[in-house]
Amino acid sequence: MNYREILEEIFHEVQPMIGRGRIPDYIPPLASIPRDKFGMALQTTDGDTFQVGESKERFSIQSISKLFALTLALRLVGTSIWKRVGREPSGTSFNSLTQLEYEQGIPRNPFINAGALVVADILLSHADKPKDAYLEFLRQLTGIASITYSKTIYRAEIKAGHRNRALANLLKDFGNLQHSVEDVLDYYFFQCAVMMSCKELAQACLFLAGQGVSPLAGEVVSRRHAKRINAVMLTCGTYDAAGDFAYRVGLPGKSGVGGGIVAVVPDKMSLCVWSPALNKAGNSYAGTKALELFTTKTRLSVF
Amino acid sequence: MNYREILEEIFHEVQPMIGRGRIPDYIPPLASIPRDKFGMALQTTDGDTFQVGESKERFSIQSISKLFALTLALRLVGTSIWKRVGREPSGTSFNSLTQLEYEQGIPRNPFINAGALVVADILLSHADKPKDAYLEFLRQLTGIASITYSKTIYRAEIKAGHRNRALANLLKDFGNLQHSVEDVLDYYFFQCAVMMSCKELAQACLFLAGQGVSPLAGEVVSRRHAKRINAVMLTCGTYDAAGDFAYRVGLPGKSGVGGGIVAVVPDKMSLCVWSPALNKAGNSYAGTKALELFTTKTRLSVF
Amino acid sequence: MNYREILEEIFHEVQPMIGRGRIPDYIPPLASIPRDKFGMALQTTDGDTFQVGESKERFSIQSISKLFALTLALRLVGTSIWKRVGREPSGTSFNSLTQLEYEQGIPRNPFINAGALVVADILLSHADKPKDAYLEFLRQLTGIASITYSKTIYRAEIKAGHRNRALANLLKDFGNLQHSVEDVLDYYFFQCAVMMSCKELAQACLFLAGQGVSPLAGEVVSRRHAKRINAVMLTCGTYDAAGDFAYRVGLPGKSGVGGGIVAVVPDKMSLCVWSPALNKAGNSYAGTKALELFTTKTRLSVF
Amino acid sequence: MNYREILEEIFHEVQPMIGRGRIPDYIPPLASIPRDKFGMALQTTDGDTFQVGESKERFSIQSISKLFALTLALRLVGTSIWKRVGREPSGTSFNSLTQLEYEQGIPRNPFINAGALVVADILLSHADKPKDAYLEFLRQLTGIASITYSKTIYRAEIKAGHRNRALANLLKDFGNLQHSVEDVLDYYFFQCAVMMSCKELAQACLFLAGQGVSPLAGEVVSRRHAKRINAVMLTCGTYDAAGDFAYRVGLPGKSGVGGGIVAVVPDKMSLCVWSPALNKAGNSYAGTKALELFTTKTRLSVF
Repeated sequence: MNYREILEEIFHEVQPMIGRGRIPDYIPPLASIPRDKFGMALQTTDGDTFQVGESKERFSIQSISKLFALTLALRLVGTSIWKRVGREPSGTSFNSLTQLEYEQGIPRNPFINAGALVVADILLSHADKPKDAYLEFLRQLTGIASITYSKTIYRAEIKAGHRNRALANLLKDFGNLQHSVEDVLDYYFFQCAVMMSCKELAQACLFLAGQGVSPLAGEVVSRRHAKRINAVMLTCGTYDAAGDFAYRVGLPGKSGVGGGIVAVVPDKMSLCVWSPALNKAGNSYAGTKALELFTTKTRLSVF
Repeated sequence: MNYREILEEIFHEVQPMIGRGRIPDYIPPLASIPRDKFGMALQTTDGDTFQVGESKERFSIQSISKLFALTLALRLVGTSIWKRVGREPSGTSFNSLTQLEYEQGIPRNPFINAGALVVADILLSHADKPKDAYLEFLRQLTGIASITYSKTIYRAEIKAGHRNRALANLLKDFGNLQHSVEDVLDYYFFQCAVMMSCKELAQACLFLAGQGVSPLAGEVVSRRHAKRINAVMLTCGTYDAAGDFAYRVGLPGKSGVGGGIVAVVPDKMSLCVWSPALNKAGNSYAGTKALELFTTKTRLSVF
Repeated sequence: MNYREILEEIFHEVQPMIGRGRIPDYIPPLASIPRDKFGMALQTTDGDTFQVGESKERFSIQSISKLFALTLALRLVGTSIWKRVGREPSGTSFNSLTQLEYEQGIPRNPFINAGALVVADILLSHADKPKDAYLEFLRQLTGIASITYSKTIYRAEIKAGHRNRALANLLKDFGNLQHSVEDVLDYYFFQCAVMMSCKELAQACLFLAGQGVSPLAGEVVSRRHAKRINAVMLTCGTYDAAGDFAYRVGLPGKSGVGGGIVAVVPDKMSLCVWSPALNKAGNSYAGTKALELFTTKTRLSVF
Repeated sequence: MNYREILEEIFHEVQPMIGRGRIPDYIPPLASIPRDKFGMALQTTDGDTFQVGESKERFSIQSISKLFALTLALRLVGTSIWKRVGREPSGTSFNSLTQLEYEQGIPRNPFINAGALVVADILLSHADKPKDAYLEFLRQLTGIASITYSKTIYRAEIKAGHRNRALANLLKDFGNLQHSVEDVLDYYFFQCAVMMSCKELAQACLFLAGQGVSPLAGEVVSRRHAKRINAVMLTCGTYDAAGDFAYRVGLPGKSGVGGGIVAVVPDKMSLCVWSPALNKAGNSYAGTKALELFTTKTRLSVF
C-alpha cells in the first residue's frame, strides 16, 4: 500500500477538523499550545517511516506515558503487577474516585490515573534511579538520546494535581502504595511531562507491532506480554471511549491529553497522531478522525 | 495448522477443569444440566469444520442471542440503533440498574441485559413476525431448519425474570422502550431460550470471520458492520470480564450463562465452546480455559 | 397562642408563593389540579381545630399514605419490620434504584418508595382484607366514614408506575417481597390514591402529637412507637430534603407529591398544609413556606 | 427528676456493655486508650451538674469538634456557609469520596469530614489566629482555661490522614477550598485533637439547650442559630446512623471516634457520655446505650 499517499489524503481530509474541540486548561503550559497543530507518523516493522504535518514537533506525551510505564513494570516484575491493578475497562472517567472507593483501592486498569499511580509505585520499588530508567527506556526504544521531560510542564502538573493527589491519598489509605504519596505523584507527573514527537512515539511503540521485538531496540518484552499490552490498550487505552475507539478505529491505541494518540497494527506497524484539541472523552478530536480514516482507507484493523 | 489435533489436545488438557465453577440456579431447567459437559467446534472460512466432545448437543444460547439480535437490528435499521444504546464497556455487572439510572436510561452497550432489551424493542418495531424472523435468521446462517427454542426454558425465564423486569421498567420509565414491558421481555426471553449446538453456533458466526460474508449464508452484513460487531464483542462481549478475556484469549467473543462462548478469528474462522459451569464473571470456566489454550497453541489472536 | 390569627397571617404571607413550583405531570389526574389551591389545618391535643383556606377540600395523599402504612405495620407486627427495611435517611432521591441495588434489596427507610413497597407487602401478609383495613384505619383515626380512594388516580398510578414497578421487581429479585409484584404495587397505588383534606389529615395524625393516643381514636400505638414514628419522619419524611426541612421547620413531617404535608408538634398538635405546586425536592413549595412561617411565629419546634 | 439516681442506674446497667465494640486503630494514641472507660455528665440550664464514672477525664473530642467549628463559623459569617456545604444527611459513610465526587465538591453537611474541611477553610479565612480562636471559644463556653489539644494525637492524625487528605484534595480540585490543602488539614486535625472531659463538653454545649444562651457564657448564638444547629445534629450528627440514633435516643447528638457523644435536650440540659469502644457506625457502643437508657428512663426526647 502507498502509505505516503494515504497519509497525505488523511492530512487533507482532516484539515476542517483540526482545531475543533477543547484545549485542556488546568495546566497552563498545555493551554498555550496552538490548536491548529497536526502531525502523523507511521513506522512499519519493515523499517519504513512515513510522516505528514508536524510529525517531528515534540509535545507532552501525558497519558501515553502510562503505556511505557506498564511495559517497564512488566519487564521488571512480570504479571505480579495484576495483584495490585486490574485490567478491566473502568466504565467511568479516567480520574474518578468513586470506583476506586467501591473497589477498595484496586484500580480498574493501569491506564486510568489511579492505576498508573500504582504502576509508578511499583517502578519506584524496582527500578534503579527510576526517572533515569524511564528516560533511558524511551531512548533505547527510539535510539534518540535527546528525549527528556519538560520541567515547565512537570512543575505545572505538580501545582494543578489536586485530583491526582486525591487519588494517590485514597490509594495510600487502602494500602496500595508503598512509597509516599508525594514521591509517587512526583514520579507520575515526571512521566506525563516527557516530550516526544509523533515520529519518536511511533518508533517507541514498534515493539508492540513486532510481537515484542523492535527492529530498533531488539526484544523489548516477550511475545505474550506484547499481545497482552495490546489487549489492555484496546479495552482500556482511550479513557471512557475505548468501546467507541475500537468500533471506529479498530486498533489498540493509547491517548493522552497532550493531544497524542499511539496505535498499533499487529505484525505490521505502529502509528502516532497528534493534534491538541480534544473531544469530550479527552482524546484528540482530529487525531481520532485521522486514525479512523486510516483504518477505513487501508482496511487495516484487528477485526 | 492441524486443528483436529489441537482440539484433541485442548480437550485432553481441560479435562480437570470441566465441571469447575457454579451452575446458575435461578432458572431450574438450566440448573439441571450435568456439569461435566464439554464441546468445542471450529468452522473455517475455507469451509472446514473441526469438532471435539459434545459439540453437537444443543444447549440454551442465553446471552449469545444478543449477538444475533444486534446483527439483525443493524441489518434492519443500521447505525441508528446507537441513538438508543451505547457501545462502551459497562464496568459493572451485566444486570446492574445503577449505571442505567445514572445514565438516564441509555444502556452502556447491546450486550448487557438493558441494552439487549432495547435491541429487542427495536426488532419488535422493525421485524415482521419478530420471533419467526429471529429463528429464520439463525436457520439461514446455519442452513439448519430444525433450530428452535425451548418452551421449558422460555417459561422458566419469564417466571424468574424479576431483575430483567426491573431493568425493562426502568427503561420504559426513561422512555427508551416503545413496546410494552411485557412484550419486550417476552421477546427477550424467547431469544435467550433458543437451543443450538457448538457446531451450529460456530457456523452461525462465520460471517463475522468473513468480513460479513458467510460461505454458508452469503453476505449477512457489510464488511464495515462485521468489523464493528467484532469490536463491540471484544470490548463488551463477556460481561464485566471483557478486559480479562481480551488479555487471556485475545479474540472477539460473546458468552452466555448457558455455558456457551463464541469467538471469532477475523479472516480465518469462528469457534464455539460449551461447558455449563461458570466462573465468577458468569462465563464458562472450562470454556474460557479452552479458548485460552487455543490461542496459546495456535498463536491466533487479534493482537 | 392565638392560632386562628397566626393561620390567617400565614395565609396572607404565603399568597405570593402559592402556585410557584411545578405540578407533577406523570399522573394526569394530578396534573389537572389548579395550582392556586392552598389550605391549612391545625388540630390540638386539647381538641381544638383551626383552619384556613381550602382546608376541607380532599386531595390525593400520595406519600403521606406511607406514614399510615408504617403505623399499621407497627401495630400488626411490631419492630420486626426493621428486619426488612432500614430507618436511615437515604441521601438519594425517593425512587432511586441505585442504593437499593448496592444495599441488596433492603430499602433505606419506610418513607422512600422501595421501603413503602416492603411495608405494603407486610400489610398484605398480616392485615385481613388489606384495602378495607387501610381505609378502616383512616376512618377510625378521623371518625370520618366517607374517607376513600380515587379510582381515577389509582388507575393512573398503575398506568404510570414504571419506576415503582422497577423497584418492586428489584425487591422481588432480592427476595424482599413475599407477595407478587403486581399485588404489592396494586396495594401501594391504592394507598397513594386515598383522598383526604387538610383537616382530616391533621386529625389522623393527632396520635403522633399525643404520645400514641388520640382524643378522637384512643390509643393508636404505644408511646414508644409514637416517638419512633416521629423520629423516622424527622430524619426521612421529606425525601432528600429532610435535613433542610428539619433546619427550616424543625418538626417531624411527611410530604406527598399531591402537595400535602403533615407535621407534628409533640405533646401539642398536629398540622396539615396543602398546595399542589412542588419545589425541586418534591415537597409543596407554599406548604413548606407556610410551615416555616408557623414555627417562626409560634417558636414551636422540637429544637 | 432525680438525675443523680438516674445516672447511677444507667452506670450500673451499662456495665456489661462497656468495652464492647472496636477501638479505632488508625491513630496509635487512640488505640492505646483502655476500653473499659466510661463517663457521663449532665448539665442543666438551671446550672446543676450531675456526673458519673470518669466524667472528668479528658479524651480526644475528634468529630465533636465539628459542632464547635460549625458554631464558630455561623458566628463569624452567618448562613452564607450554606453556599459551600449542604445540610442533608449523607446516606454514606463519614469519609466517603463518592458522594463528594457526584455532587461536584459540595459536601452533604458540616458533620461529615468533607464538610468539616470546608468549615475549617472558612474559619481560616475569617478567624483571627484560628487555632487560638478555636481554643478560646471552648474556654469561653466552659470557663475552663486549661482546655487545649494533644500534640501527640495531632501529629498522629497528620501522619494517618490519607483519607482526609484525599477529601481535601478533591475539594480543592472542585474549587471549594480557598486555603492550601495542608493548611486546612492542619487546622482540621488540630481541632480533632482537642482534649475535653464529659463535664467540660456538657458545659460547652449548654447554649444549645438554652436557645443560644449559656448561663456560663452568655449569648453564644441567636435562638434561631441554636435551633438550627440542633436540627443539623439530629439529622447528620452521628454519621450514617443518624436515623437510628434519632429512633433510639431521640435527641440531637454529635459523636466522635474518640468515644464521646454530646446530646441536647432543648430548654432543659446538655449531656455528654464517653466510652472508647465503638459500634459499627463509629459511635460509642456503651455511650449510645447509655443515652438510650437516659431517654427511656426520663422520657425526655424531642419527640
